[in-house]
Amino acid sequence: MNGNSGYPERATGVQLPKTARGQITFDKLIKAAEKVIGESGYHEASVSAITQAAEVGMGTFYLYFRTKKDIFRELIYYVHHDLRRFIQISVADIADRKDAEVLGIQAFYRYCLEHPHLYAIIREAEFVDYEIFRWHYSNFARGYAGHLRVAMTKGQVKQLDPEMLAYCLIGISVFTGMRWPCWEGKLPSKEEIDTLREFILSGISPA
Amino acid sequence: MNGNSGYPERATGVQLPKTARGQITFDKLIKAAEKVIGESGYHEASVSAITQAAEVGMGTFYLYFRTKKDIFRELIYYVHHDLRRFIQISVADIADRKDAEVLGIQAFYRYCLEHPHLYAIIREAEFVDYEIFRWHYSNFARGYAGHLRVAMTKGQVKQLDPEMLAYCLIGISVFTGMRWPCWEGKLPSKEEIDTLREFILSGISPA
Repeated sequence: MNGNSGYPERATGVQLPKTARGQITFDKLIKAAEKVIGESGYHEASVSAITQAAEVGMGTFYLYFRTKKDIFRELIYYVHHDLRRFIQISVADIADRKDAEVLGIQAFYRYCLEHPHLYAIIREAEFVDYEIFRWHYSNFARGYAGHLRVAMTKGQVKQLDPEMLAYCLIGISVFTGMRWPCWEGKLPSKEEIDTLREFILSGISPA
Repeated sequence: MNGNSGYPERATGVQLPKTARGQITFDKLIKAAEKVIGESGYHEASVSAITQAAEVGMGTFYLYFRTKKDIFRELIYYVHHDLRRFIQISVADIADRKDAEVLGIQAFYRYCLEHPHLYAIIREAEFVDYEIFRWHYSNFARGYAGHLRVAMTKGQVKQLDPEMLAYCLIGISVFTGMRWPCWEGKLPSKEEIDTLREFILSGISPA
């Protein structure tokens, strides 16, 4: 797997569906894996619990995935792209990257509330499949740094190292997302969001 | 367990040593657990691998710990206090909290390099014992917010929500610590540290 590419190679243990009907079954299995692994953790989750939740037979699972780890990796690809798309849509109309930073983090909070399992699964990936975990964050940071680099060229964000700044902003998102949406099941208060905005905007605005 | 207290209750499955000699054996077991669980992960690690690494008999393990999870929790307490002590010592002579922030994060990087297993173990705790994981970060953030509150009173740090700011700074530490010390086995470059400092100091300095 190429940790820097836009999409890592599929594990040899995944057989992508070839028909529309197959795609529906495949998606059902991914959604079921999200629920079962999200609720009970990777180690406790069983293939039979996943097929039961997807309402398909065990044999159907093995048409697409060789092992539980293969469906887990596929689930991480799904979360990765779904989350990025969700954030991109949320900030699509924002002209200034500075404003997009805080709104992007707020979109991330909403994503955490709507998909608590998906997000827990990404963090669990570190201990299930380190390569895919690292791919997720380095690829996310690469996209983030690219946006920041463009904003620096436009003079919207001060000249800083884009990768370091990307990891700072991802760390802020993940830890504040853990504290409020994940632990409390709610968005931060207006005052807390004001602090987030004030800290980030003062940190990245050109002098 | 009280998630807000300075020290959570010991699990009923831990028997603290009563003699100096017992303490030496106990510490040996903790160090061995750090190595074995750090290298192979909690689920793969076995009590017998821990006792072999500690060079004690299996019976000795069970004098102090009822299960593998009990020694894991004890290890998290150890890491938590060891890390906080390490950072506190590193910034003890710094009068201005603003400067202490960045120096504290740099101390954290060194800690990650010196104790790669310990840090991975804290993150694994999320999936082994969620309660102790949450205790670690909420207790860490509580201490952090307390320092920030004092610095705000002194006018060293701008008036912001101390808890939100604490989680932002912890997120920055954890994610940049993951990217450089943990993944690359090295400290960020001078230019990267300059970005870290510029971002944080602009973000928290009073106008």
